[in-house]
Amino acid sequence: MVERQSGVALWRQIADRMRLAINNGDFDETGMMPPEMALAARFGVNRHTVRSAMAALAEEGIVRPIQGIGTRIERRDRLRFPISRRTRFSQGLGNQTRNLEGRLLAAATEAAPAAVAAALGLAPGAPCVRLETVNSADRRPVSCGTHYFPADRFTGIDAAYNRTRSITASFQELGVSDYVRRSTEISAVHAEGDDIRHLKLSPGAIILVATAVNTDLDGVPIQFSRTRFAADRVKLTVEPEPDAAASGSKG
Amino acid sequence: MVERQSGVALWRQIADRMRLAINNGDFDETGMMPPEMALAARFGVNRHTVRSAMAALAEEGIVRPIQGIGTRIERRDRLRFPISRRTRFSQGLGNQTRNLEGRLLAAATEAAPAAVAAALGLAPGAPCVRLETVNSADRRPVSCGTHYFPADRFTGIDAAYNRTRSITASFQELGVSDYVRRSTEISAVHAEGDDIRHLKLSPGAIILVATAVNTDLDGVPIQFSRTRFAADRVKLTVEPEPDAAASGSKG
Repeated sequence: MVERQSGVALWRQIADRMRLAINNGDFDETGMMPPEMALAARFGVNRHTVRSAMAALAEEGIVRPIQGIGTRIERRDRLRFPISRRTRFSQGLGNQTRNLEGRLLAAATEAAPAAVAAALGLAPGAPCVRLETVNSADRRPVSCGTHYFPADRFTGIDAAYNRTRSITASFQELGVSDYVRRSTEISAVHAEGDDIRHLKLSPGAIILVATAVNTDLDGVPIQFSRTRFAADRVKLTVEPEPDAAASGSKG
Repeated sequence: MVERQSGVALWRQIADRMRLAINNGDFDETGMMPPEMALAARFGVNRHTVRSAMAALAEEGIVRPIQGIGTRIERRDRLRFPISRRTRFSQGLGNQTRNLEGRLLAAATEAAPAAVAAALGLAPGAPCVRLETVNSADRRPVSCGTHYFPADRFTGIDAAYNRTRSITASFQELGVSDYVRRSTEISAVHAEGDDIRHLKLSPGAIILVATAVNTDLDGVPIQFSRTRFAADRVKLTVEPEPDAAASGSKG
């Protein structure tokens, strides 16, 4: 059902429904989008709306028009990003994509915002290094991250990240051989401001926000991060570790 | 920054940004929304747009106009719904809200869709009981769920749910004393169709989708569910259980 009085342009709703149909595998048999007229009939809109929706999906890299043939489906499913005690960007996506890249957009040393100081167990206003990063998989941006590190312990992590393009490697350079995820909060909002540009989103697109605290192996908080994933490209997966009550009995 | 050529109505964008500001605690000092003119200046839009955005937030129960006084903030934060091996709706939200209610919208016995059959370890097309539910906290709908159960084992679970209003209690009536979450996939999409109505969403709103498989304590899959949470009301939290590598050392 299309909501015509909805405050969301019709072409955007149709683009969302087409994306969902592609993710569901509705067109897998041919690997091509049906002709415009068939799509117009299916979604109960005119061809102009179908064309606008298709253009948005092409811009997102989901479909590609092939001259004289039709519109090919380029990407069916979202990348699966695991949330666990061992969450690391590169290992998480490692087997699903060839070309992983982290890039530093900005770095600053500044007073920790209240929520960050609380999460890191710092005094209010304690100095933190803040890194703004964007992560890409196969040259497609998938997430933007804002990361805070206690400045007394992690001075120079910006330079380390610029060299290594990896937070795990940067931690290692600064003496943290291993770390674990303490907690993750997941919410979803409409993309705003710079995220739209860095993630190459259409306005109105959705981002999944993962707010996390990492600790070293002594349980001392070392990183607060807020990662914004393009929701049309990524889903998060949670596979809890077995606990005592059910150990040894999983099928 | 407001995106004026975005395919999302301006008032909707402003409502989203106001919701975010409320969640961030920007107006906590007074507990009231600033006057229309101040909001118009802050967001760079006219008062008509502010009024439309405010009406949408009032409809969502986030703010409430008080005659002669102003607009009071009714709800600051989202409910936190934990994702873990022990995920249950009622326990998850139990300490955050007084009045929890599950309601059965529809039930049917039907052939399992391919993805469901695969997740439940059933033959393609094996019969399943499907339940459609809506869950509310303090009379406010927070999620819609579609749940599949193998029909050979769980005939009558629709009647049990109707009586108990709880999947945990329904399982117990049918001989499953306990169960665990095997895996959860989290994605986010624009709300569609019936979900908009049941969750009392404004069109264009976002839902967090949690797709999960539960097993009994022998590891046999007993439930496939797809729960759609109103993203403006709920965030999901993941707190991994400690593993051997870090046990005893958490701060």
